[in-house]
Amino acid sequence: MEAKTPAESRTILTDLVLPGETNPLNNLFGGELLARMDRAGSIAARRHSRRIVVTASVNHVAFNHMVPLGSVVTVEAKLSRAFNTSMEVVIDVWIEDRESGKRTKANEAIYTFVAVNETGRPVHVPPIIPETNLEKERYEAALRRKQLSLVLAGKMKPAEATELKAIFQ
Amino acid sequence: MEAKTPAESRTILTDLVLPGETNPLNNLFGGELLARMDRAGSIAARRHSRRIVVTASVNHVAFNHMVPLGSVVTVEAKLSRAFNTSMEVVIDVWIEDRESGKRTKANEAIYTFVAVNETGRPVHVPPIIPETNLEKERYEAALRRKQLSLVLAGKMKPAEATELKAIFQ
Amino acid sequence: MEAKTPAESRTILTDLVLPGETNPLNNLFGGELLARMDRAGSIAARRHSRRIVVTASVNHVAFNHMVPLGSVVTVEAKLSRAFNTSMEVVIDVWIEDRESGKRTKANEAIYTFVAVNETGRPVHVPPIIPETNLEKERYEAALRRKQLSLVLAGKMKPAEATELKAIFQ
Amino acid sequence: MEAKTPAESRTILTDLVLPGETNPLNNLFGGELLARMDRAGSIAARRHSRRIVVTASVNHVAFNHMVPLGSVVTVEAKLSRAFNTSMEVVIDVWIEDRESGKRTKANEAIYTFVAVNETGRPVHVPPIIPETNLEKERYEAALRRKQLSLVLAGKMKPAEATELKAIFQ
Amino acid sequence: MEAKTPAESRTILTDLVLPGETNPLNNLFGGELLARMDRAGSIAARRHSRRIVVTASVNHVAFNHMVPLGSVVTVEAKLSRAFNTSMEVVIDVWIEDRESGKRTKANEAIYTFVAVNETGRPVHVPPIIPETNLEKERYEAALRRKQLSLVLAGKMKPAEATELKAIFQ
Amino acid sequence: MEAKTPAESRTILTDLVLPGETNPLNNLFGGELLARMDRAGSIAARRHSRRIVVTASVNHVAFNHMVPLGSVVTVEAKLSRAFNTSMEVVIDVWIEDRESGKRTKANEAIYTFVAVNETGRPVHVPPIIPETNLEKERYEAALRRKQLSLVLAGKMKPAEATELKAIFQ
Repeated sequence: MEAKTPAESRTILTDLVLPGETNPLNNLFGGELLARMDRAGSIAARRHSRRIVVTASVNHVAFNHMVPLGSVVTVEAKLSRAFNTSMEVVIDVWIEDRESGKRTKANEAIYTFVAVNETGRPVHVPPIIPETNLEKERYEAALRRKQLSLVLAGKMKPAEATELKAIFQ
Repeated sequence: MEAKTPAESRTILTDLVLPGETNPLNNLFGGELLARMDRAGSIAARRHSRRIVVTASVNHVAFNHMVPLGSVVTVEAKLSRAFNTSMEVVIDVWIEDRESGKRTKANEAIYTFVAVNETGRPVHVPPIIPETNLEKERYEAALRRKQLSLVLAGKMKPAEATELKAIFQ
Repeated sequence: MEAKTPAESRTILTDLVLPGETNPLNNLFGGELLARMDRAGSIAARRHSRRIVVTASVNHVAFNHMVPLGSVVTVEAKLSRAFNTSMEVVIDVWIEDRESGKRTKANEAIYTFVAVNETGRPVHVPPIIPETNLEKERYEAALRRKQLSLVLAGKMKPAEATELKAIFQ
Repeated sequence: MEAKTPAESRTILTDLVLPGETNPLNNLFGGELLARMDRAGSIAARRHSRRIVVTASVNHVAFNHMVPLGSVVTVEAKLSRAFNTSMEVVIDVWIEDRESGKRTKANEAIYTFVAVNETGRPVHVPPIIPETNLEKERYEAALRRKQLSLVLAGKMKPAEATELKAIFQ
Repeated sequence: MEAKTPAESRTILTDLVLPGETNPLNNLFGGELLARMDRAGSIAARRHSRRIVVTASVNHVAFNHMVPLGSVVTVEAKLSRAFNTSMEVVIDVWIEDRESGKRTKANEAIYTFVAVNETGRPVHVPPIIPETNLEKERYEAALRRKQLSLVLAGKMKPAEATELKAIFQ
Repeated sequence: MEAKTPAESRTILTDLVLPGETNPLNNLFGGELLARMDRAGSIAARRHSRRIVVTASVNHVAFNHMVPLGSVVTVEAKLSRAFNTSMEVVIDVWIEDRESGKRTKANEAIYTFVAVNETGRPVHVPPIIPETNLEKERYEAALRRKQLSLVLAGKMKPAEATELKAIFQ
């Protein structure tokens, strides 16, 4: 399979925060944002693989900013790295101030999706070639995250997670 | 107020067609697409005016293509023309084939939004300067559509709708 | 096929404006009203044709009145004219004041639906015979709207749209 | 307060059964129908009282017919009797066959609503005068149902429920 | 079929009251609570019968307490009695005060479900053996309710409803 | 503040997988499950703190099992550890086979919530004392996860994350 670039999977989902999606402080519910990121991320993974994709895991997601009712929220998803059958997607979330138009980064999340065939069995996906500096950084970090994920799931011994281990030494 | 370009209001809403949004033929409900276009269009109008905006009217929308369950649908909204307090937004809808990645235009719609203050009273919006050829074409056509809208609402005599009249002579 | 009257397709959808359906000014979202009108209109078209129907187009819709949270909204749809396989439906929207019970017309919209068979292919629908004066007026106007729609879609030359042309001379 | 007729509160909610509202047998979920009946019934009670209304109780509701996906469902609500601050509403549910147009009664339910002021305190409602035979029958039965409700809630002794007692003797 | 206990069907659905589920007084909509109770009740009936189940009827439900926006609502469903193919489920609804943690009973409802096979035809369900005093009480009362339901539906003569009759003598 | 046990925050949300919540393979959408876990987790954190709570972060969530349409899904949330103003909640997800009644663990997720006052400012929460062996294990692991979270956010140097470092040596 021919390699692709992260730009080819870029997916933008800009939408409003409606009254039915808020918590008692009138901010966007964490769960609703997780769902939007999942939809945008799955489209990015589908654009890369041209396959049905299912969510495999969600990495650490920090909710740093409240997102008030009525906000315009932009969820932007792009592949950071492709493995055999799985794809890591980085998702950036922005809100913009209505009066100044200024954009603020509200969140950054990492999801992993697996490409499957019609019966749900994993299938291979094309490799990816990062282009920009940020894409290259995220590409490198993806390997450490995969090791961390395998270690946490008990599928890799900490000692074998060489890239990850290096951080703590 | 300083003039802006159509590009500054460009809004992209890419999302899936979920099972709860389909009709008995398993295609996206017309009403659901109208609602998505309304949300994307209102964000474009808000980006141009930096004001609260409300939907004023929907122009002729033709549903030329079925949009099947599971499709990736991209709704792209951009201002075509700004009047005193109202803004015409052109909305293009694309679907993409999962296997080939090929994009097909599914719809084109025109909505008009009005900028209002906190009490709902209309306020002025910045002028717009079209840049590309398509933007210039749509800018010209917007005036004819506004005349048609005024004629249909009985607020302008057909004889005074000079741009519109010219088409039929 | 035997002709029917507009009254036979009359469809009433009375419902509340719930908190999840409002914009930042606490009024019914334009997009939600468009979706309700689409559902009511499609039922009217189905009652006339007794077929599966799909939305073909939406004509000019003006949002003249705000519809506040908690309102009782009545959407009333009725066929105005039947063509070969398509049906024009006029949709009137009313809101009523809770304390006085007074009804106010909030919107008037025109949608076109096409009757299709199980594979999505258009099928013929019965003709319609207008009865009241308003029904007759709308029946006549429907032809001009169809011409306008064909002209805008580039499928009819303005010079051939005789009924439409007459307005501007 | 001036008496009203049941006809003045008549409320019709005709809508489709969408894919997101069905159970594993592809029929309308009981809970969704209960919610639609609640909305239609509360509008009828509001039309009679011109007050904010809240659901006080739901009487025996039998689900006799399956309502398949894609059905057109008509929920029709009308006051059967007004008490001091509460109103009994009878709700009839019809489905119609797409091909024959034949209407079948799918359900009949009875809800009770209470009129309240802005602080949630019960307020008086106008009396009602039944007109048709069916309305008169339902008006009489409402009293027995109110007694049954009071007996079941332990607020009336069975011996005092004279209208109800009469049935079992 | 082997008998089961009510405890084996116990189902707990704890969830928040979100802004999209409230009425104009900012309390949970009656219809939304009816829908949640229907889902929890149907799971209890399914756990007892291990079959597909459909809602057959809803007995008298009284809404005694307002349930404000943001509340934590616990819906708890448990079989009270199994008949041939139908199951009566008692559903208790609790809300809890955020600051004190105190739980208050907000509602008690009774639903009946029928077990069906893949074609929708009723099938037999296991008998039930009540254990606690409350379960035994509800088991006895279920028979009177079944008689009442048959009498109201005209399927049993009042004189034959011996358990029910006894109350009124 | 008096210490509490994990059992005091235990929250169970049992619900069905409805047709509107599934992906093209007819399994529960990852995003919808993330939203349910967020709601259940926030209730557990609220039960512990008796405060308004907001989602602070989501730790690694692996989607190991497909959850098919019509499944009964039990989301069970319980505090694993309380820090100053934040609370780590472990969420276990179970599905049960309709015919055998057998429960299978489908997911395990970790969310962190922060207690806030009415203005959104963090406030202290009671300490927690784990009781069972599993609770004690999760209590210990919570500290390593907090360190990992701080390291990933650049707020702690890897060398200072002593508990975490120990794993990789």
